[in-house]
Amino acid sequence: MPTLTSDAGELLMQRIEQLAAITESDRGLTRRFATPEHRRANDLAASWMVKTGMSVHEDAVGNVIGRYEGTKPGAPAIMLGSHLDTVVMAGKYDGMLGVLCGLACVEHLAASEQRLSHAIEVIAFADEEGVRYQSTFLGSRAVTGEFDYEQLDRLDKDEISMRDALIEFGKNPDDIAKAVRQPGEITAYLEVHIEQGPVLEQQNLGVGVVTAIAGATRMVATIKGEAGHAGTVPMSLRQDALVAAAECITGIETICTGPADLVGTVGSIRAEPGAGNVIPGRVEFTIDIRSATDSQRIEAVEAVVAHLHSVCERRGLGITVETVHNEPSEACDDTLIEHISNAISTCQPRVLKLASGAGHDVMVMSHLSAAGLIFVRCAGGISHNPAESITTEDAWLGAEVMMQSVLNLDGVLS
Amino acid sequence: MPTLTSDAGELLMQRIEQLAAITESDRGLTRRFATPEHRRANDLAASWMVKTGMSVHEDAVGNVIGRYEGTKPGAPAIMLGSHLDTVVMAGKYDGMLGVLCGLACVEHLAASEQRLSHAIEVIAFADEEGVRYQSTFLGSRAVTGEFDYEQLDRLDKDEISMRDALIEFGKNPDDIAKAVRQPGEITAYLEVHIEQGPVLEQQNLGVGVVTAIAGATRMVATIKGEAGHAGTVPMSLRQDALVAAAECITGIETICTGPADLVGTVGSIRAEPGAGNVIPGRVEFTIDIRSATDSQRIEAVEAVVAHLHSVCERRGLGITVETVHNEPSEACDDTLIEHISNAISTCQPRVLKLASGAGHDVMVMSHLSAAGLIFVRCAGGISHNPAESITTEDAWLGAEVMMQSVLNLDGVLS
Repeated sequence: MPTLTSDAGELLMQRIEQLAAITESDRGLTRRFATPEHRRANDLAASWMVKTGMSVHEDAVGNVIGRYEGTKPGAPAIMLGSHLDTVVMAGKYDGMLGVLCGLACVEHLAASEQRLSHAIEVIAFADEEGVRYQSTFLGSRAVTGEFDYEQLDRLDKDEISMRDALIEFGKNPDDIAKAVRQPGEITAYLEVHIEQGPVLEQQNLGVGVVTAIAGATRMVATIKGEAGHAGTVPMSLRQDALVAAAECITGIETICTGPADLVGTVGSIRAEPGAGNVIPGRVEFTIDIRSATDSQRIEAVEAVVAHLHSVCERRGLGITVETVHNEPSEACDDTLIEHISNAISTCQPRVLKLASGAGHDVMVMSHLSAAGLIFVRCAGGISHNPAESITTEDAWLGAEVMMQSVLNLDGVLS
Repeated sequence: MPTLTSDAGELLMQRIEQLAAITESDRGLTRRFATPEHRRANDLAASWMVKTGMSVHEDAVGNVIGRYEGTKPGAPAIMLGSHLDTVVMAGKYDGMLGVLCGLACVEHLAASEQRLSHAIEVIAFADEEGVRYQSTFLGSRAVTGEFDYEQLDRLDKDEISMRDALIEFGKNPDDIAKAVRQPGEITAYLEVHIEQGPVLEQQNLGVGVVTAIAGATRMVATIKGEAGHAGTVPMSLRQDALVAAAECITGIETICTGPADLVGTVGSIRAEPGAGNVIPGRVEFTIDIRSATDSQRIEAVEAVVAHLHSVCERRGLGITVETVHNEPSEACDDTLIEHISNAISTCQPRVLKLASGAGHDVMVMSHLSAAGLIFVRCAGGISHNPAESITTEDAWLGAEVMMQSVLNLDGVLS
């Protein structure tokens, strides 16, 4: 027996469209942190929360938080949510879906006049994508007390500091510390998010439960060879930096293929001088390696670095490999995984447990409380793109699993 | 016994410096076709020719031609030369060396009051590099009657047409046909040019004789895969266009390594969208394949195209390969190769015969008369770069081999 009404999916999709209409650009959805569009999206989300009977406030970093009290006022809360900011030329579901699923849960409780032993809070984080200030998780880090105050001096591309942007947005940056929540206040954090990958679609499933957020290592490799005339330098006398890079790239694929959730990507490459009739003397490329199992990722990183050095040594070329980002994996809470799995099992034939290769607010929130993540299938695994797409049925399924999980957890969590 | 005086090398190097001072930019030598700098360089070269007692004229495309009559006025000429234009941020020797070697030969004849049975003409071609109008061999093509008149409408980056540039340069574009020489007028064309490769240096030789100008095929390959999130798409579900390109590039190296003078180069590559955390969905790269043996080049091109298709088919990716340039090799004249070789053998311990992987005016001039090319060692094989460098001894050697070749040929050629 489903918990939510059958029209909850349509309502959610209508709200998706209303939020998607609030964009900085006509060409695809763009809504960066602390912009006038962010203001309008926050106000719209807050109005929906108020209508549901929640008490709503916006903290000093711009997170919107609605609270639906439990049987006893002031009880610890189960928090539901995701983010309202987007990348440039984004899709309509990344972030928004989680906020609206949380809202759908509270609407159900309010409509059926239920109060749980926990309060339910719905949160719309102000910044997860970090596009405007090259930051990450400004919203959830403010809530967990991990906000980096030095970032307030960062400038966006129009030379507006984050501090000034927040003031313009109507906030007092000195109050950000007041956004911090204490461990006792929040018992669990639950998020619904599009998968941003093709696995659920491949497995013909609408939703899945996430076991961990993959750890990630990002590196930049620079190979130094010797530029030369493409016609006049014999093959045996070349120090071609691009052929060496090519050998490195196929090696990275080989190393990262096999171990279940390990992935390795070279997304960007630049060959210099970059003319068709000149042998490349210098090539720079990025390497991104992720896995939910840290030991597996670290082993792969070591193998990749060794491979790169071995290729360049054999070819007599120089190489430097710089690590620019290194983040361990974050496991989701076992109790939450279990209860989400139970909820999923009532809605679809199989429960798929999978790791998330992308970072999400749940990763930060796990520092404050038990945290769980429900993935919703998205067409072709495409995200961060106007072609991002989910079905109304799957949106409903995400909200339904969230609702059932909340009901199950309410009796279990302290 | 050397023919030229020992100070001919120093004089040549002084003139190199005088020409190098005539540049559009302070940062390295830049002297494009029909610019004020080209005008000054032409006038300087003409003044040297006049001083040597040659009759000098400039044709309608801007080639400077000096003529030193033989024993009988109006006799067929042996023509010596190269070009005065440069690439952007060029070296000082590419082109200029050949013009000044020709001038040194005539100076020797004039100083020793010798007249040969052939006239000697020294030519300074107006455009070989083709930088300003993305053309090639404007100068020599005007002389052989292969000038493409449609190019007169081409615009440079400042939107100035070639026609207007020539008029501004003091020329009448309608007279270009008058620049054409008839086969009987020119018996042989001899050019001295820096090697632009490392082979002579590697072999510890100052000069070498060129057997052929390599033919060249240039292609652009475009691989179409599927972009995706670097963290969320499992390796087994990827259609990564860059890994496929990498496999193609190492394959191109393998195919082109081995056969003596075959070379294959990928000089330029672009991966889209080109972000570190996105799997490349589209990659475009150039392929440049050259050989002095056409059958060898054609075989390699076929093998490369087959390899590219096989890689992409196996990976389930789309690929297009477009041929953007296809030019057969041009053999140098056997009689000239023999006489140049004889001249070299009097100057250094060994005669090295090698193919030229780069195009030169000699390639076009071979359509009009017997044509031969003498290579001079350049440091590290570096060219098209301010670091381009040759020694005074090798410059002298180039001129000496040219002079001896002319003297030998004068008795042999009709």
